[in-house]
Amino acid sequence: MPSPLMECVPNISEGRRREVVDEIVSAASGERCRLIDLALDPDHNRTVITFVGEPEALAAGVLELVARAVERIDLRTHQGAHPRMGAVDVIPFVPVRGVSMADCVALSREVGEAIAARFGVPVYLYEESASAEERRSLAAIREGEFERFPDKIKDPHWRPDFGEPIVHPTAGVTAVGAREFLIAFNVNLATSDLRIAKKIAAAVRFSSGGLRYVKALGFGLEGRGIVQVSMNLTSFRKTPILRVFDLVKHEAERHGVLVQNSEIVGLVPREALYFAAASTLQLEDFSPRSVLEERIEEAFGEGR
Amino acid sequence: MPSPLMECVPNISEGRRREVVDEIVSAASGERCRLIDLALDPDHNRTVITFVGEPEALAAGVLELVARAVERIDLRTHQGAHPRMGAVDVIPFVPVRGVSMADCVALSREVGEAIAARFGVPVYLYEESASAEERRSLAAIREGEFERFPDKIKDPHWRPDFGEPIVHPTAGVTAVGAREFLIAFNVNLATSDLRIAKKIAAAVRFSSGGLRYVKALGFGLEGRGIVQVSMNLTSFRKTPILRVFDLVKHEAERHGVLVQNSEIVGLVPREALYFAAASTLQLEDFSPRSVLEERIEEAFGEGR
Repeated sequence: MPSPLMECVPNISEGRRREVVDEIVSAASGERCRLIDLALDPDHNRTVITFVGEPEALAAGVLELVARAVERIDLRTHQGAHPRMGAVDVIPFVPVRGVSMADCVALSREVGEAIAARFGVPVYLYEESASAEERRSLAAIREGEFERFPDKIKDPHWRPDFGEPIVHPTAGVTAVGAREFLIAFNVNLATSDLRIAKKIAAAVRFSSGGLRYVKALGFGLEGRGIVQVSMNLTSFRKTPILRVFDLVKHEAERHGVLVQNSEIVGLVPREALYFAAASTLQLEDFSPRSVLEERIEEAFGEGR
Repeated sequence: MPSPLMECVPNISEGRRREVVDEIVSAASGERCRLIDLALDPDHNRTVITFVGEPEALAAGVLELVARAVERIDLRTHQGAHPRMGAVDVIPFVPVRGVSMADCVALSREVGEAIAARFGVPVYLYEESASAEERRSLAAIREGEFERFPDKIKDPHWRPDFGEPIVHPTAGVTAVGAREFLIAFNVNLATSDLRIAKKIAAAVRFSSGGLRYVKALGFGLEGRGIVQVSMNLTSFRKTPILRVFDLVKHEAERHGVLVQNSEIVGLVPREALYFAAASTLQLEDFSPRSVLEERIEEAFGEGR
């Protein structure tokens, strides 16, 4: 049996000082809590860090990361385009293999409680871990950001799930939760007309009447003379990537515009590609057991 | 580093007596020469056996299989729809990972030589292993079948690559070679008109002007009231499965017919699905390193 694996994707409020990011990341990463992706964004002044590991090793690693981030990041002087409320802004746990969403929820609670107890940083549980419906949305929790959180946290409605209702003076507050794997998927359109990208984003996203598990915005791509529909697919099994792509393409054609190409930002689960292929090829009864390498791994008991 | 792996797909001339097939297969299979697929065909009276293993273990296993098949199969009494010339009719080696086509060719020669020396079965090298251009085609070697091989083998033009030019009295002759992974891909059409399937097969296959690495036939599917374009894709990197599917679909539409569905017979390499997905999604600069699980295997050094 392969060992159980989760993904954990802490977002920290530092995306400019490479040496600080490296110090924070290396505090967490090791043999059993593996760094698999790292994306610094200087404009956002934020870094998205992707670890994979067995649950307990991942939890231990992430607590080391929080320890170092609380020491090294001071939100009182932080500026960046992306909204944020904490030195470690958000910590989602994601099932990868051999673990359930319930396992991720349980681990997120354990880590959240430890963060509040060890570092004095109040913690909110969000998404699948949320203690109330209105706390599922990270955006709702983060509203007001670091600067206005000292007031918000006194509202009994916004009492933290762990820790006292007192914002950490330099590290703010942190959201910890569990969610499904998120695919960041951008479709580039062969036009410079930003209004078209915005219209298509509005057509496909859930919030304005589109597909259930799609978030979307329209952007211009500076210097390339084209526009982009930038999306997060928050549940790729229920709202598959190919259906999203086909809808964007179809909507674009209504405006006389073709899709130039598309891109995955970060990583995509293998299953999402298998099912896009099976769908486009109209494969009847496709299962991953039809894949040579899956059968080999099964035969040799690899992937442990 | 993962260990090097090849696939080997012996076809034996026995597809009815399950106990004989099991005996022959179990002579070969073990820890290091793993059976991953087995397809008995009673109509063809033939079984396609798929092993995967490290090259030397695979070679040793296959020689045990030949030993048992030569003992247990008597071509003098063999009947079946599929053309055949030997108890073990053909043994292709296929690169899977960490081995080149040249490695497969070298192993096929080694195994071919051993078969002739140990069992007195003359061996022809075919496809990538062929000693002359006209021997690349298995169909050309097999022409005349078991019954007419005693004459054919005396023709200096058809002298075997290994062994004396004397057909084994009960086990015939065997072809051994190296080739790329072959995808067996069928597209089912929502019509009962066999002529349409045959026309489309003729349009897409190489031999009559179609795509370079496609073999195709049109069949009726008894009892289902539909027809099928049944294909072998002999080089899926050069003639990708999605391009083949799209062409079949497009040709069908010319006849006012839709694709009902399609099916993979046996196994499909992961890469073929990745690239079908990337192509249909117009993914720019896709590489397997964008796949979560590939990155995890890389990070944890799994797949050894």
